[in-house]
Order: sequence, then C-alpha cells, then structure tokens
Amino acid sequence: MYIPTYEDVEQAHQRITPYIHKTPVLTSTFFNDLTGATLFFKCENFQKAGAFKVRGACNAVFGLSDELAAKGVATHSSGNHALSLSYAAGRRGIPVTVVMPRTAPEAKKAAVRGYGGVIVECEPSTSSREATFAKVVAESGADFVHPYNDPRVIAGQATCSKELLTQIDNLDAVIAPIGGGGMISGTCLTLSNKAPGVKIYAAEPLNADDAARSFKAGHIIADDAPQTIADGLKVPLKELTWHFVSNHVTDILTATEEEIIDAMKLTWQRMKIVIEPSCAVPLATIIKNRDIFAGKRVGVIITGGNVDLDRLPWNL
Amino acid sequence: MYIPTYEDVEQAHQRITPYIHKTPVLTSTFFNDLTGATLFFKCENFQKAGAFKVRGACNAVFGLSDELAAKGVATHSSGNHALSLSYAAGRRGIPVTVVMPRTAPEAKKAAVRGYGGVIVECEPSTSSREATFAKVVAESGADFVHPYNDPRVIAGQATCSKELLTQIDNLDAVIAPIGGGGMISGTCLTLSNKAPGVKIYAAEPLNADDAARSFKAGHIIADDAPQTIADGLKVPLKELTWHFVSNHVTDILTATEEEIIDAMKLTWQRMKIVIEPSCAVPLATIIKNRDIFAGKRVGVIITGGNVDLDRLPWNL
Repeated sequence: MYIPTYEDVEQAHQRITPYIHKTPVLTSTFFNDLTGATLFFKCENFQKAGAFKVRGACNAVFGLSDELAAKGVATHSSGNHALSLSYAAGRRGIPVTVVMPRTAPEAKKAAVRGYGGVIVECEPSTSSREATFAKVVAESGADFVHPYNDPRVIAGQATCSKELLTQIDNLDAVIAPIGGGGMISGTCLTLSNKAPGVKIYAAEPLNADDAARSFKAGHIIADDAPQTIADGLKVPLKELTWHFVSNHVTDILTATEEEIIDAMKLTWQRMKIVIEPSCAVPLATIIKNRDIFAGKRVGVIITGGNVDLDRLPWNL
Repeated sequence: MYIPTYEDVEQAHQRITPYIHKTPVLTSTFFNDLTGATLFFKCENFQKAGAFKVRGACNAVFGLSDELAAKGVATHSSGNHALSLSYAAGRRGIPVTVVMPRTAPEAKKAAVRGYGGVIVECEPSTSSREATFAKVVAESGADFVHPYNDPRVIAGQATCSKELLTQIDNLDAVIAPIGGGGMISGTCLTLSNKAPGVKIYAAEPLNADDAARSFKAGHIIADDAPQTIADGLKVPLKELTWHFVSNHVTDILTATEEEIIDAMKLTWQRMKIVIEPSCAVPLATIIKNRDIFAGKRVGVIITGGNVDLDRLPWNL
C-alpha cells in the first residue's frame, strides 16, 4: 500500500490547476451567530462538475501515461466521482465507464452521460457494486480509479485544504463529511504536514455511521447498503483512508437525517447556495456540538452541489 | 421631482458601506457556451437580507435626521424591499411598518418579522396596496420609503453597478430585471455617468410586460395585478423610474413563464446558487436573444435569492 506524501499533493496541484476552479470561501453572519463559531465555508459545490471529487479524478487521469490513458478509465461511484471522472476523461479525450447504483439521482446520471461517460447500473449495495465493477474492468482493461482508496485520488483531494490554508489564516479546526474517507484523508494529508495544530473533524450520518464505529473500535467496520439522505456517504472506509482517519482525525461526529435536512435547507435559505445533503452533515454536527466549536475558527468543506431539484428531501 | 445625481450615488455608497456586502461576480462556462456571450453575474442574492434592495433601503434609513428617524419608516412591497427596509431600520434601531400582499411568499413574511418589521396585509393588487398604505402612513407619521420611486432608493441601487464597474472591465452591456424600475434606474444613473458606452437592457416577464409596452408607447402604462411567477416584477413604473428608463435604456426584452422557470432551474443546477424567479428573467432573455448578446461581455444583475423552498415553481 503506497501512502501518498505531501510532495504528491504539490505535484497533483500543479497537474490539475488548468482543469479545476480555485473555489471561493464564503462566510455567514447568520451561521456564526447560530453556532458561536467563525465558520469558513470552502465551496466545492462551485467546483468543476459540481464537487471536490474532480480534484482526485483529474490527478489520476492526467497522471496516466499516454499508453495507459488510451485504454480509458473506469470506476464505481454513488455519483460525484462518476461525474468527475467523466469530466476529467472528457478533458483528456479518453473513454470512461462508470458503475452506478440504479437508484442514484437522475441528475447525476444525466450529467455523467453529458460528459461522455458510459454508465453500467448495479444494485444499491456495496457488494453488488463491487461485483459488477470487477466484470467491467476485466472486459475493458481500463485503469481503475477508485473513488477514494487510491493514493492519486487522495493526493488530489488534498489540494482542497491546501487552497484553504492560503485563503484563511489561523484556523483552529477543519471539518468535512466522511463516507469512504477520500476528502478527510486528503485533509489529513495536507494539515498534518502544513498545519499540524489544526484539529480535523469528520461528520457522518447517524444512519451510516460505520466510520464513527470503526474509529471507536480501532478497526474498519463496513455496513452493506446503509440508508441515508446523504447519498454520497454510504460507502465504507478502506485500508488507505483508514490509515489517515485512524492517525490524524480528532473525532467523528454524527447527525440524524432530520438534522441533516434542516441544516441543508437552512443553508439554501440563508447562504443562497445549492448544497448536497452530504455536505450539510458537518454543519448539522457543528450546530449540535456547540461546546466543541464555539469560539473557534472552523473551515467547513462544502463538498458538492449536485442535487436532483425534482426530489428535494424536504418535499419527499 | 428631484432627479438623483451621481454625487448622490457616491454619498449613498459611503453611507451604506458598513451595512452591505460588496457582492461577488460569478462566471459560468456552461452559460457562456449556451449563450455565446461572456456573462458576469453580479450576485446580489448574497447581499444582506438576500437582495439588492438593501442598498436603497439603507441609503434612505441612514440618511434621515435623528428627529425624522425617531418616527420610524414605512413602505409597501411585494417582499424584498420590505425585508430590506426592516433590516435597515433594525440596524438603526427605529420602528418599521410594511404593507405586503397577503399572497407574498411565507419565507419573506417570516424574514420581515425576524428583522423586527410589523406587517399590515393587503390584497395582491396595486390599487389595494396603495389604499392600505395611505392609511398606515396617515396613522403613524412614519417616513415613506417607496420601494423604487424615491431618489434615495435609486441612488442606493445605483451602487450595485458602481461596484460592478470596479470588478469587471470592458463591459458591452448590463441587463437587469424590471418591475417598478428601481434597479434599472440606478443602473442607468451609474452607467450614463461613468460608462456611457455600455448598453442597458431591461428584462421583464411577458405576463407583466407593462414596462415593455410603456417603452414602446412613450408613456407609462400600468397594469393592475398582473400574474407572473416573478413576484418581484408585478409593480408598474412611476414618474422617476420612467425618467431613467425612457432616457437611457436600449431595449426591454420579455420572457414567458416557462422560459423564466427553465432559466431559474438551470441556474440552480449549473451555478449552484439560489436565485429568485425575478432574476432568472434576464438570463431567460439572453438565452432567447442570441443575436443581441453573443460575442458581448454582459453584466447580469442577479437581484435576489429569497425563495420559498416549499413552493418551488417547477414543483407546482
């Protein structure tokens, strides 16, 4: 298992800069008053393809030799990684196949196809996803870009907090959602090297709290097909992300479905930005854990904004 | 009738700066590709109280003598001006009464009350609104801050394009929605003084096209209670805004309800920002008038983001 280094992050940032946005950091008087903290929202919902995952995907795709690239890339993903890999492959002009749960939001499927990705559907469980994917890779010979358990992907995601450190001084903590752990691992990689005093919190839906239980148990616990509105956070930790989570994360906090939906709706209403349920989880945990965050300067990673507007959670 | 000058705009900007945001300008590769133009979205949806109207409201409220201010302020408004005047009065600590149509979005009513405003409801027609308001003012002695036909308000709104000129160079045109004409008048006031070569377009719902018909006829035509999803644009021009519109606007373009809703939804999906139906009207007209805008650098005023998330137009 190759553990990516901060040198990999610097190379990744140079490699992907032409293909990504340096996303803005927003603040909100309303949320500062509500939480007692000073929050800095790193808005990856404004990122290319609508999510931070384009950072890791671009690093993987543009790091391939011409020979490997010609065979294309493939992945499995609940949505944003699929979209991002399709965007990256499209920019390089190589084929891309993605295995997606048939229940994934229609908006994400349409966007993958819009970028030229070919979708192979599976059942909405980790086991079905992995079985279907193995077949796809065996048939195509494409390079497998795992959505998170891949050093190239983690080095790419790490460029998000690398940017954040240039935008905001004197952070006390950074919080990001945790599903498979790609964003959190990248955050750990950057902060442990460049700002080791900054605490790192992960936020997870209570309905899919395998990472929180893993963190307490000291080993990976994986659930098959947990049910949560935060559809980007259903996947389990893997060995590479577990390495970063177990070594560098201060704590993993959880929020209920209702708390997640409330925080999401409140963000739309007050900040006027479209965010996914997944990235409302950190804010939901900040609101309910005032004792941890009040008085602190906190970076909040807003991971993406790809939402099916015809199926908003408060209208279901 | 006092016509505000650019000196009034400079004074207004100095006066209101502590109470407003300098809002960001966003761009979108997707919309540039779609329209053939280079669009610069001036995001007043991120403004205090969620709309540009806070500029004019703050200029009026903070320009009052202490003696006049003590009696409070009052207005009638379909929503955002009510919210903005309540915010401004709250910051100065003076009373504020607003007459609102009983059909105004619940989110706006709640926000007005949240800022400390007292609401008096009327029927959703211009005639009922004006009659109810006359009674309120007679009883309270409050200073009337008209939502748009007021030189203080127009000078305040003019600070929006004043900011835009410092943010973006070499604009060919600026487009904004037109209802009563406050934002457009402010835009005319700034551009005619500081960038007279920049064309000014107004955008209006076809269902409430009294300004477009007035523009063609050469005199004000006022409709009572037009029906459109763009609820901020139902009110008619008045003499002061007519002065600016008739002297400085290049053309008034219209869009159907369907075109407005499509442009609004597409903006949410692609730009990840929450915008009101009213500010989707300019984008809708740019999309359908490619011959006018393709190849041009166009400032697009995103006027506000106060939407009732439980009643989105594509779910009705």
